[in-house]
Amino acid sequence: MLIILQSGAPDAVLQQVVERIEQLGMQAHVSKGEFRTIVGAIGEENPQLPDLLRSIEGVENVVPIMKPYKLASRDFHHTNSTVTVGSVVFGQGLPVIIAGPCAVEDCQTTRHIAQAVKAGGAQMLRGGAFKPRTNPYSFQGLGEEGLKILRDCREEFGLPVVTEVTDPRNVELVCRYVDMLQVGARNMQNFVLLNEIGQAHKPVLLKRGPSSTVKDWLLSAEYILSGGNNQVVLCERGSRGFEDEMRFTLDVGAIALAKVDTHLPIIVDPSHAAGRRDLVAPLALAGLAAGADGIIVEVHTCPDKAKCDGPQALTEEMFSTMMRQINQLTRAMTAVAS
Amino acid sequence: MLIILQSGAPDAVLQQVVERIEQLGMQAHVSKGEFRTIVGAIGEENPQLPDLLRSIEGVENVVPIMKPYKLASRDFHHTNSTVTVGSVVFGQGLPVIIAGPCAVEDCQTTRHIAQAVKAGGAQMLRGGAFKPRTNPYSFQGLGEEGLKILRDCREEFGLPVVTEVTDPRNVELVCRYVDMLQVGARNMQNFVLLNEIGQAHKPVLLKRGPSSTVKDWLLSAEYILSGGNNQVVLCERGSRGFEDEMRFTLDVGAIALAKVDTHLPIIVDPSHAAGRRDLVAPLALAGLAAGADGIIVEVHTCPDKAKCDGPQALTEEMFSTMMRQINQLTRAMTAVAS
Amino acid sequence: MLIILQSGAPDAVLQQVVERIEQLGMQAHVSKGEFRTIVGAIGEENPQLPDLLRSIEGVENVVPIMKPYKLASRDFHHTNSTVTVGSVVFGQGLPVIIAGPCAVEDCQTTRHIAQAVKAGGAQMLRGGAFKPRTNPYSFQGLGEEGLKILRDCREEFGLPVVTEVTDPRNVELVCRYVDMLQVGARNMQNFVLLNEIGQAHKPVLLKRGPSSTVKDWLLSAEYILSGGNNQVVLCERGSRGFEDEMRFTLDVGAIALAKVDTHLPIIVDPSHAAGRRDLVAPLALAGLAAGADGIIVEVHTCPDKAKCDGPQALTEEMFSTMMRQINQLTRAMTAVAS
Amino acid sequence: MLIILQSGAPDAVLQQVVERIEQLGMQAHVSKGEFRTIVGAIGEENPQLPDLLRSIEGVENVVPIMKPYKLASRDFHHTNSTVTVGSVVFGQGLPVIIAGPCAVEDCQTTRHIAQAVKAGGAQMLRGGAFKPRTNPYSFQGLGEEGLKILRDCREEFGLPVVTEVTDPRNVELVCRYVDMLQVGARNMQNFVLLNEIGQAHKPVLLKRGPSSTVKDWLLSAEYILSGGNNQVVLCERGSRGFEDEMRFTLDVGAIALAKVDTHLPIIVDPSHAAGRRDLVAPLALAGLAAGADGIIVEVHTCPDKAKCDGPQALTEEMFSTMMRQINQLTRAMTAVAS
Repeated sequence: MLIILQSGAPDAVLQQVVERIEQLGMQAHVSKGEFRTIVGAIGEENPQLPDLLRSIEGVENVVPIMKPYKLASRDFHHTNSTVTVGSVVFGQGLPVIIAGPCAVEDCQTTRHIAQAVKAGGAQMLRGGAFKPRTNPYSFQGLGEEGLKILRDCREEFGLPVVTEVTDPRNVELVCRYVDMLQVGARNMQNFVLLNEIGQAHKPVLLKRGPSSTVKDWLLSAEYILSGGNNQVVLCERGSRGFEDEMRFTLDVGAIALAKVDTHLPIIVDPSHAAGRRDLVAPLALAGLAAGADGIIVEVHTCPDKAKCDGPQALTEEMFSTMMRQINQLTRAMTAVAS
Repeated sequence: MLIILQSGAPDAVLQQVVERIEQLGMQAHVSKGEFRTIVGAIGEENPQLPDLLRSIEGVENVVPIMKPYKLASRDFHHTNSTVTVGSVVFGQGLPVIIAGPCAVEDCQTTRHIAQAVKAGGAQMLRGGAFKPRTNPYSFQGLGEEGLKILRDCREEFGLPVVTEVTDPRNVELVCRYVDMLQVGARNMQNFVLLNEIGQAHKPVLLKRGPSSTVKDWLLSAEYILSGGNNQVVLCERGSRGFEDEMRFTLDVGAIALAKVDTHLPIIVDPSHAAGRRDLVAPLALAGLAAGADGIIVEVHTCPDKAKCDGPQALTEEMFSTMMRQINQLTRAMTAVAS
Repeated sequence: MLIILQSGAPDAVLQQVVERIEQLGMQAHVSKGEFRTIVGAIGEENPQLPDLLRSIEGVENVVPIMKPYKLASRDFHHTNSTVTVGSVVFGQGLPVIIAGPCAVEDCQTTRHIAQAVKAGGAQMLRGGAFKPRTNPYSFQGLGEEGLKILRDCREEFGLPVVTEVTDPRNVELVCRYVDMLQVGARNMQNFVLLNEIGQAHKPVLLKRGPSSTVKDWLLSAEYILSGGNNQVVLCERGSRGFEDEMRFTLDVGAIALAKVDTHLPIIVDPSHAAGRRDLVAPLALAGLAAGADGIIVEVHTCPDKAKCDGPQALTEEMFSTMMRQINQLTRAMTAVAS
Repeated sequence: MLIILQSGAPDAVLQQVVERIEQLGMQAHVSKGEFRTIVGAIGEENPQLPDLLRSIEGVENVVPIMKPYKLASRDFHHTNSTVTVGSVVFGQGLPVIIAGPCAVEDCQTTRHIAQAVKAGGAQMLRGGAFKPRTNPYSFQGLGEEGLKILRDCREEFGLPVVTEVTDPRNVELVCRYVDMLQVGARNMQNFVLLNEIGQAHKPVLLKRGPSSTVKDWLLSAEYILSGGNNQVVLCERGSRGFEDEMRFTLDVGAIALAKVDTHLPIIVDPSHAAGRRDLVAPLALAGLAAGADGIIVEVHTCPDKAKCDGPQALTEEMFSTMMRQINQLTRAMTAVAS
């Protein structure tokens, strides 16, 4: 960590900085330049130190050198991690395809969709039983009833299932029924929930918050990893932007950047970014081309009757077309890598 | 609600739109123009209808006319609401000043700060016992021990207390110790928490999320109001922007806009927006000038020893200076209004 | 255009709205609903009408139905356009690769780079002679001297050349030396420059501004098209975001959305979005997968001596590797399309 | 400047860094820590150095210490500057009020508005003769005819006039008619125009671009200052955000931050930020409370006939009411300061 003092800061400031550094068990190296005095703090970086030093009047800037996350960092785990969910492996080269309805609406509809996405080439089923909705008067999901439907579909179609958990009190319940827990974008910094999931023995899909940096995202992953659960897959789903003809701005740069900074697998959710089905396929392909290890996509056999997010759901036919494109792309990308 | 069909959409689309509208108990008025066919849906607007209609291939756009929130809307409650917390009333003309440390660190420090902010003119005490921190290795708060310290300070100094609640399982616990519950910006769309707080019998301070529109914010307030708790005060604390010398972009326009759209009181948090103490006073004054009913501000008697957010904490002296400016501003604004 | 009156707006408002519509040669269709009165304006939409109507007290909202651009719109030109620059055709299926230095620094360096990118597979050469720099003390380009170097490279290597024009007084000068004019992101709404370029007989590369919507972008294209120059290629290069480890947020959604809304070819600039060379290749591939018709990329044979934007310049070797990936991707995408 | 090498970077990297620093006439101080090697570059900072160093493989980060602007910086001019336009002085304590129509439409309307704003307390007149419009089919201003109308109003009402210049070829023309040149937000980084204005002998109003940081803004001011024109007044008018019920996000933090970083006067434009007249007054007051030295506001005697931006124009009556609030606020703020 580097601490830059203001030009002309009195010696008392330097002394205070050095003391604070030494109190926290680090060493201080002072370097007095022509324009500025700079102090290097050497040793294990303490997460509170930057703020403590910035609080001192006379300190101009504090520049951390180490990443604030450890278990999520590629510095501590150089090769790519893989995460296994039943028969499916994230991070092994071939993209994982997760598809299904936004919300589980009823048994019959969910079965039809599960059947369709399996036929189209999906390896996992998605579907929400607990739906976080912006509007309190919107459909909020079927709860445990929805979990049962998902479990039944998993058994009938042999597709591992991922579903969102929104309440720390429900983590155990949800774990009983499904194969992978999803943390939604709005809950990326719900640290109470992350702590609870860190204790669970289930793989986790952690979506990026709509105004979170890659650093924030990896710190949220660190919450789960440091709780003891190392089965984390990241998911980019768009950040909040100013374009009013799309819902969110899919940030393929965040995928590429996270691939540099972390060893965890990353997938892409084109549906929530687009908010409209005609843009889903190009965003899915873009995410994969940027390096994503898979996609999670919304499909509905009858989108205009969907209780939730119908405008962004692919029809069966659109899903099949997109899958052909993805397979072709995958073959191309693999050919280059090998 | 207006439904605009694509140019050249076949009659089947029009028929499907009309049916869907009538199924949900509304009436459809069709108007065929030179370039486009437009359908008006008349009656009580159903929150699911826009998405259902947008899902139909051949529908170009759906324009809702009514606001999606009701209890929070000024349409349903024309005059300003007030919210009472002990001896303090939000929304009655004079700004409410809430001050205190970011986190409750220990009894002695908290007492010193409480004494200082009371002397400076604060009417309420703030302080975090459960701290949502981006970094899992940062100080996370004292928990119930912190709540006890806050309660003791309230009794000693006669200042009502507000503190953040982050876990739906702790709502009852926190209610036992403090006078007002705070929902932090990162939890603004933690609907599980909002539902729990909707059941509580305590006033609530609801911060705006860093990438939430005013509409999103008022829908989150609607969660609490529709749960039966109508004691909601809103708080603007900055949205996520691109400027890297400040933490967040304080959005005074959101204050002015919310004043138009809702009857609920609104205060401003200049500390989290600024992230540095030299900008706190101008942001506080700007928020009040834009119409805010009060401020919540971080003060520390020894910022360079603060365990949390020291760089943005005002010193006692800075707090006093700012209070003199606020009092002067208030007198000016009141003189105009009367 | 639909005009929605405020609930309870007096009849005088309706009358004023109808008059204004008729004054501008359109017809007004009034529809009085239970909650709101809505007026449809039928006929050729006047660009000033929305603001005129919004200015009337008692009007709640005005919803345009037609796109505000015409020549750029796919409604007026259903099939994809192509733009030809020498031997190169944009929009014909195969991606066009433009590569070269950020700035033309001297003859020798530019020749080396031109040779390298040609060997690597580029079909066009880029290079700045007039550099818009944020900092007035940074290198601003060689001016006409740089144009001459570009012309010489074009002749030596047979690569058509694109370069940025920043001054309306230089359009003619620049046209004399190069094959395609570039409008930089910061000048996307420099309407004086756009008007001048609209008069020129050269193909144009129009970059998207860092905070411009797709609609703004297409309106800027409309400036050039309506001036008589219909050889416009669009270029996405990232919008301003909050992530501080990358320069801009490459918006692949804007590419996909623009493909729906306009018939013009679109390419992608991964270099300026990334701001660092390790992220350039994934962003290039993502842009192409999203539907872009080509890329423009910065390459330098000696990036650590570059006078401009060295950190984002690809080395020769990185460029070759990326080209192999692009070729593979292109073959895959073409296979699907056919 | 501090250069941080990657962990484990070979000695050749360090050598290359040191060489590059010394080539540019600075001294290098190397400090090898436990985890990282850090090099300090001492001496006059070269604007190209950070990029040159970042381009070297093995360099992790480069941290500039000095601000990149000089003439605009408070480091080089500690006390506040004032800028004089006729009888009006910016930066002298009392806020300067500039008001008038968005565009000069005709002589009669402009005279009425000038009379009204003078009566309401404005000290300067604004009005556009050359209008940069997003849509090429919108009203683009009267050109020189508009300048003449402005000059006549100045003489008739004794109000100095500010108007936008958009074309470097028109700077001289505009200077002949008006008292102050405005650089619009979209032209903040039109460096060709800035250079031309730097040569002019007229005060300048430089608006902040909708996605520009304060640093970018001050660098644009530096273009004008370094050209020899030191009469620069800054103007905040909102940055691009995600809220769709307002046009831009007025960034009062940018005002407060710029006050720390520069000695130049700063005013606020609440009209373009709001985009709707009911929010103009609270934004004006907020800007002044944050420290702005004045406002520029749009007023129209007949907004629903305005050819440009009618929805955000204040009526005469609204302007008078706002002026009473501003006067009261000013008295309060001055009382505190004294």
